[in-house]
Amino acid sequence: MAPSVDKSNGVTENGNSVKEMNSSSLIKDLIPEDEQSPVPGLDDPVRMTQNATTAHILTAKWTIAEGWAAPEIKRYGNIELPPTASVLHYATSCFEGMKAYRGFDNKLRLFRPWLNCARMRDSNERVSLPDFDPEELLKLISTFVATEGPRWLPDTGSTFYVRPAMVGSGSALGINRPGEALFFVFAALFPQSRPGTINPGIRLITSQPSQIRAWPGGFGNTKVGANYGPAMTAQVRARQNECSQTLWLFGDSNIVTEAGASNFFVIWRRSDNKALELVTCSDETGVILNGITRRSVLEIARERLGSQDVAKQVSGDLDALDVIERPFSIDEVVKAHQEERLIEAFVSGTAMFISPVSQIIHEDKFIDFPTTENEAGQKVTVSKYAKTIKLWLEDIIYGREEHPWAFVVDETRDDIAKKA
Amino acid sequence: MAPSVDKSNGVTENGNSVKEMNSSSLIKDLIPEDEQSPVPGLDDPVRMTQNATTAHILTAKWTIAEGWAAPEIKRYGNIELPPTASVLHYATSCFEGMKAYRGFDNKLRLFRPWLNCARMRDSNERVSLPDFDPEELLKLISTFVATEGPRWLPDTGSTFYVRPAMVGSGSALGINRPGEALFFVFAALFPQSRPGTINPGIRLITSQPSQIRAWPGGFGNTKVGANYGPAMTAQVRARQNECSQTLWLFGDSNIVTEAGASNFFVIWRRSDNKALELVTCSDETGVILNGITRRSVLEIARERLGSQDVAKQVSGDLDALDVIERPFSIDEVVKAHQEERLIEAFVSGTAMFISPVSQIIHEDKFIDFPTTENEAGQKVTVSKYAKTIKLWLEDIIYGREEHPWAFVVDETRDDIAKKA
Repeated sequence: MAPSVDKSNGVTENGNSVKEMNSSSLIKDLIPEDEQSPVPGLDDPVRMTQNATTAHILTAKWTIAEGWAAPEIKRYGNIELPPTASVLHYATSCFEGMKAYRGFDNKLRLFRPWLNCARMRDSNERVSLPDFDPEELLKLISTFVATEGPRWLPDTGSTFYVRPAMVGSGSALGINRPGEALFFVFAALFPQSRPGTINPGIRLITSQPSQIRAWPGGFGNTKVGANYGPAMTAQVRARQNECSQTLWLFGDSNIVTEAGASNFFVIWRRSDNKALELVTCSDETGVILNGITRRSVLEIARERLGSQDVAKQVSGDLDALDVIERPFSIDEVVKAHQEERLIEAFVSGTAMFISPVSQIIHEDKFIDFPTTENEAGQKVTVSKYAKTIKLWLEDIIYGREEHPWAFVVDETRDDIAKKA
Repeated sequence: MAPSVDKSNGVTENGNSVKEMNSSSLIKDLIPEDEQSPVPGLDDPVRMTQNATTAHILTAKWTIAEGWAAPEIKRYGNIELPPTASVLHYATSCFEGMKAYRGFDNKLRLFRPWLNCARMRDSNERVSLPDFDPEELLKLISTFVATEGPRWLPDTGSTFYVRPAMVGSGSALGINRPGEALFFVFAALFPQSRPGTINPGIRLITSQPSQIRAWPGGFGNTKVGANYGPAMTAQVRARQNECSQTLWLFGDSNIVTEAGASNFFVIWRRSDNKALELVTCSDETGVILNGITRRSVLEIARERLGSQDVAKQVSGDLDALDVIERPFSIDEVVKAHQEERLIEAFVSGTAMFISPVSQIIHEDKFIDFPTTENEAGQKVTVSKYAKTIKLWLEDIIYGREEHPWAFVVDETRDDIAKKA
């Protein structure tokens, strides 16, 4: 068996030293700018495929014997793996989802990327992938974003999706901790939602007892690949029912956990009619991913909507919310609907950001959330809270508000290769 | 969204016809025999790595638009995937494990391969990979085995491990059913256990409540990649405790489910002292893989050990067993140990075949199985039943006994390319 690595000092049991992940050893082999493909416009249909990427990729290889090799930023291209590679058979993989935002002040920002890097370390551990210093990971990610940002995010308000991923890349038919791994980061050009706009409302369908997403003692609280492949048949069912996501229930009491790969929030009036509550499933259940947008929604709602005085001051017309993390059941949502206590629901995540929910299909019931007329006279889902929270977060990510959650990427174009 | 395929007739919703998996369209591009590497001897250390393979690989590509392309057998080599490939992020993968056996009559056999092909179809479905005709899959696998068998399995009693695998190979950052997939089969040269020998006894350690392998409504009853990566940390813990596998428990009553990636059987005397029972966790729990060796053990034990008359007749000195599939708890095993009712335990699987268990570590308890002295005067684990069942299965796979479970591979060397 290969020697296991003592993560604290980078020394194997045999006493050999192995290299830590080190951003300062990064090698850049960049494509001259005039050889790169044109940047697709914000409405270019290639963005709809969700598969168009920028010109480069960052890779870093790890082996149990040598540790982390020097990372590279190089031409985006295929990854070669032996047919025996661990990830192809045993799902030794995890990833993160982040966005880079071109601010109103033209600065480029990531949103709380420290949390992504710390979570990727946890995800790695769950599938026996190698450890690393999350600060070094952040330096690599931000250097990659700084390399691609100037060319691929020219417009204020534009974003690209950053995908750090880690896979067991070595030959490993025996079911053992991977002896080789590959870390890589690329940036994908997704359809662009403009700041200040809000989704008119998505539909969700509750999962069937024959399929659950996660369980206590499982791995639904990490961002490992194994959470996603088995969830796709439910996603197909959701689409067949003209819903955009599955609302995942868990356990005998049908706890509401997640919506697709996003967290789920409901706002209702308490049954004693005394207060409004913002409720989401608690992290302690072990069956939800503690999303970074989720945490931010909870923190900003507690800070700015937690008391009536502050809520009125910062929002103008919003009542205060009791912000609550606890396991709650779909029956509670059904009851609140019957008693006309539902105010709003929304999902949160990096890809979906904050999207209001217009309807939940549960068994033979339709749970409709309140609607209103917009300025054009169309019926739309009420999203006063969702919209306000989204605007607050946008102020941070696009630099309208100075905030410790924003990480400004230091862009320099000096290191982009120019054709002689 | 790409059109979904109606699996029954290979026609998409748009009315385009797509190609079914078709073994008769197989293309062979083989390496001349004198350019292939030498066949490693049965004790060659390269077999210990579990990563040495034969010279070729079979691949078949699928796309949602075109269906299955013509399969190929070609030089074994790396697989290229885009960094956005579904399998690298979302664990859209499954596999099978089979062995090809060179019989005492020099024929080459697979063991109940129909069951592997049917199960792979189920596994594919669980992670939204494409459907196929399992008979065509078997033809592809057996053609591959026929191509590699003559050269790589020269010796009676020798085996190689056949690994069919399926992965979501297309660009798919959106969490959707894969639009492209790759099926591949290769053969790995594992350390060779000789027919008639038996493992002297392996040690198991029970899992901790903080790590659960599978859950009802999950996917532990299929052979998808997502079951394996998250189980590796427990495997590391087992090794640290000088155990070869984790004995996975489930639920509040600590049901005994699987041992590592094998099924688990215990033989004990009933507490009323009236009968011997062979007990294994029932498939209906949804938390075990219904292994092909498992099913074979159950079927052959029911047939040959189910009644005292038959048992005496076929085995000479073995008492009959009541063969029972039901959820049973580790506390029942502890109690049977305390009351000195334990007879034997063993694990079953393609890789482990039938291996007796010498000890289970559970919390602070050591559950020791009875030992005896072998002919050399060494203390070994009692394995009268395990050994007998293993011999019966070996008689089938190595052709000593004609049996419907054996699939004889039609080997012809005509299609091996000869250098001009």
